[in-house]
Amino acid sequence: MSNPTPAKHELVGRSLIAGQVAAEGSSKFYGYHPGDGRELQPAFFSATGNEVDQAVAAASEAFVALAAASGKERGLLLRSIADGIDAAAAELIERAHLETALPLPRLTGEVARTSGQLRLFASVVEEGSWVMARIDTADATRTPPKPDVRSMLRPLGPVAVFGASNFPLAFSVAGGDTASALAAGNPVIVKAHPAHPGTSEIVGRIITEAVQASGLPAGYFSLLFDSGYEVGAALVQHPGIRAVGFTGSFRGGRSLMDLAAKRHDPIPVYAEMGSTNPVFILPGALAERGEELATGLHASFTLGGGQFCTKPGIVFALASHSKAFVERLRSVTQSGPSFSLLTSGIASAYEKAQVQRGQQRTAAGAAAGEGFSAQTVLLETTGSEFLADPASAEEIFGPTMLLVNYSGEDEMLQAVRGLEGHLTATILGTEQDLREHSELLRVLETKVGRVIFNGFPTGVEVCHAMVHGGPYPATSDGRSTSVGSQAIFRFVRPVAYQGLPQSALEPALQDDNPLGIVRLWNGVWSGHQ
Amino acid sequence: MSNPTPAKHELVGRSLIAGQVAAEGSSKFYGYHPGDGRELQPAFFSATGNEVDQAVAAASEAFVALAAASGKERGLLLRSIADGIDAAAAELIERAHLETALPLPRLTGEVARTSGQLRLFASVVEEGSWVMARIDTADATRTPPKPDVRSMLRPLGPVAVFGASNFPLAFSVAGGDTASALAAGNPVIVKAHPAHPGTSEIVGRIITEAVQASGLPAGYFSLLFDSGYEVGAALVQHPGIRAVGFTGSFRGGRSLMDLAAKRHDPIPVYAEMGSTNPVFILPGALAERGEELATGLHASFTLGGGQFCTKPGIVFALASHSKAFVERLRSVTQSGPSFSLLTSGIASAYEKAQVQRGQQRTAAGAAAGEGFSAQTVLLETTGSEFLADPASAEEIFGPTMLLVNYSGEDEMLQAVRGLEGHLTATILGTEQDLREHSELLRVLETKVGRVIFNGFPTGVEVCHAMVHGGPYPATSDGRSTSVGSQAIFRFVRPVAYQGLPQSALEPALQDDNPLGIVRLWNGVWSGHQ
Repeated sequence: MSNPTPAKHELVGRSLIAGQVAAEGSSKFYGYHPGDGRELQPAFFSATGNEVDQAVAAASEAFVALAAASGKERGLLLRSIADGIDAAAAELIERAHLETALPLPRLTGEVARTSGQLRLFASVVEEGSWVMARIDTADATRTPPKPDVRSMLRPLGPVAVFGASNFPLAFSVAGGDTASALAAGNPVIVKAHPAHPGTSEIVGRIITEAVQASGLPAGYFSLLFDSGYEVGAALVQHPGIRAVGFTGSFRGGRSLMDLAAKRHDPIPVYAEMGSTNPVFILPGALAERGEELATGLHASFTLGGGQFCTKPGIVFALASHSKAFVERLRSVTQSGPSFSLLTSGIASAYEKAQVQRGQQRTAAGAAAGEGFSAQTVLLETTGSEFLADPASAEEIFGPTMLLVNYSGEDEMLQAVRGLEGHLTATILGTEQDLREHSELLRVLETKVGRVIFNGFPTGVEVCHAMVHGGPYPATSDGRSTSVGSQAIFRFVRPVAYQGLPQSALEPALQDDNPLGIVRLWNGVWSGHQ
Repeated sequence: MSNPTPAKHELVGRSLIAGQVAAEGSSKFYGYHPGDGRELQPAFFSATGNEVDQAVAAASEAFVALAAASGKERGLLLRSIADGIDAAAAELIERAHLETALPLPRLTGEVARTSGQLRLFASVVEEGSWVMARIDTADATRTPPKPDVRSMLRPLGPVAVFGASNFPLAFSVAGGDTASALAAGNPVIVKAHPAHPGTSEIVGRIITEAVQASGLPAGYFSLLFDSGYEVGAALVQHPGIRAVGFTGSFRGGRSLMDLAAKRHDPIPVYAEMGSTNPVFILPGALAERGEELATGLHASFTLGGGQFCTKPGIVFALASHSKAFVERLRSVTQSGPSFSLLTSGIASAYEKAQVQRGQQRTAAGAAAGEGFSAQTVLLETTGSEFLADPASAEEIFGPTMLLVNYSGEDEMLQAVRGLEGHLTATILGTEQDLREHSELLRVLETKVGRVIFNGFPTGVEVCHAMVHGGPYPATSDGRSTSVGSQAIFRFVRPVAYQGLPQSALEPALQDDNPLGIVRLWNGVWSGHQ
């Protein structure tokens, strides 16, 4: 970036439409500090229906022009956004802390994660092999003659991205969905989460500046504010929008899926809606290190106030072997602090879920304090009671975990077979445990996006192999991931070119492989090491 | 196969459920010969709701066991099915000709296409790189420690496949959807198209025999008959079905999409619903070889009686340059034969569409004969009339093409920008034409799955690079193809394995790469060549 210590962004509270500050909105809302519930300045203004149309029109117009941009150009844009975010780290962390009460070290890490994943996608599109170029050359001697056919992945068109409440940076305005959609060449319109509008505005202005500096069309990016659901619904129903990325509640995600499915032309919705992330502690591990596992699990389910989509919400332990584990789990829960939740809505839903649950409340931490505060709670039940009450497996967003004390392998496997889709499943065990429970692993891998052995699910490494997804209802569409470089496959489709002259082909498809990428050439992989 | 000249399959008219002949159904229907409309023996029996449940239960039970089958085992099964089809070619062609009246050479080619694509998928899964293995190894020195994460594509679960009327073999019981779903490791339940039940039964028995010989679970494959919509609707709504493949009408495809979207757990529907496949003849080509192009286009739009999903249904030609082209197009249309359509329903829909269309009928071939026969028709309109009537772009299934005589480039580009999704778009031109119309190519590639230069869209080469798909309403989901080896990506999802010991990993993910496949290892493509 040209300016390593930039001036702070003065918040204006307005949507950003294709490089312009929006002015129409008159409906105001404010962010709140979860620690004490106080209103934060300035006021933000919800975008109007007309402003939604303007953003989509600009994105649609930008799209055809963008198809000509190279991977290197898009990589440069992503790096420029990443540099802008890093340069504004102090300002971002300060505002995000005000709006979310997330601890400063956590927010510092999230800034690095956000710029890091932008750079990861930059490296992927600069390298270029991700387009899965496939070339089948002509054969005029065959009857009928075999045509020349070449295909590669191409962008879908304007993508609507919804910021998430629980990651004000990494799953928000410049988060994973925005990064992967831009990387693939799609214009992006972000609907900011109303719980952290100031953080969203700062990031939106950084992206807007980067797009301006890049020379790419300004319609490549817009940011829309709204305290309610109108702007989001209008985006998902807009004829110009070609796909949707969302991270949030099950109810919110499903309503977007239903809106998209009812369109004249249904579009893909990638909604990450949460998960209970079952954990299985096998007998060998319980015997070897039950107490250590209890401490680790407690840290994992209370991380970020239990507001991670990968929070372990349910843990299965063999009752006959779990005494030391359970005692430690109860004691660390009792001695733990209370947590600030992100919004008043999350805090009241948490309280309501606690009251509704039929399981035994066997341990609880410090009482809730002021603001949107919540008490840590451990619930317990037996395997047979769990099987009789499928609602037990539903997510409680916040620092609560359900322990299922099961009495035998068959009971546990029956519970596993009955699970719906989750983001993750975790097995804690010895290697011998794993061999003796091969059926558990086989069934679990049909239910989740990621199987973890001897780790905790809350860490989601941003890497090439990561899958942060899973069958419904964990997500709307288990065929993709929202974290890691494979997320670029969400916002693309294959396009074939038959019989085109070399000069009209994208470089990725030209005979002499000017990009030096890995390709499938007449059925043989070539170009790699 | 063990028997190179097998005994003919005696048709029994019953569904095949996990290796067993179904016996419950009592509702009868028959195939018909389109040439004269006569009923064909024997009677076929629609499957019952209970039989649907049995097929799905068997598929669900087979699924977890199948996850352990290797690519080589699945390849062997696909080759065994292909061998069975080739061995039964004479019998299949005879019955398919009775049921469809498609010409014998066309059916002979379709048998070869069907066994050929089964072998293509066999080669893909035997080679193994298609699973897109990604490995990010651990780094304990990092803070926090970097975990070991590995991912690969895994099957979705039981897939329901709907046979198509217009390709009784290549898009039917052992067609592309079945081949790609089985290749990826998914159990398949086919709903046979009622217009060619005998052909379907023969192929279903060949697959059943191959599954039995393979030692894989019998629930891997079932074939269900139904003269109506109940069995199909029950499959799409069944909790055990994880994805749907369909080729057919827009109305049929959309109704399946809507059923799937309303499920408790929505599932992907890959419906290929048809397309008008616009063709653009640029001025240079009109001048150079207008008459030759007219003859070629006529052959393409009447191929198979105009019942190809890639039939060129609309052609744009610059009025000031198109005299010779148009005259030849009219004359070859007038001198052409009539065609047998596949079903009485298609024939009556064709007649109805002819009456409803407002465009000028400028040429017609021989009058329709007996059975489900149809006359070839050329319709003409101007660019401005076309722009004023968006319904002009809708598909007429059968031997009709609409010629749009446009008056200038802007008018043509306006029409292109207004197009919905299509399977293909074709540009006929000189290389200079193409350079002078770069905007046309850029817009077209955002609207279709395949752009063809100087060819005709009706040939769909089965190869690695083919994309037979396209944005809605050509298909339900433009992110995939139903032809070519990339179709295997329809029925899979990525699954990540974190921290698993080598012994618990699939061979594709083990350190020493026992399959010798191409993988993304710590972000670098590596493999065997």
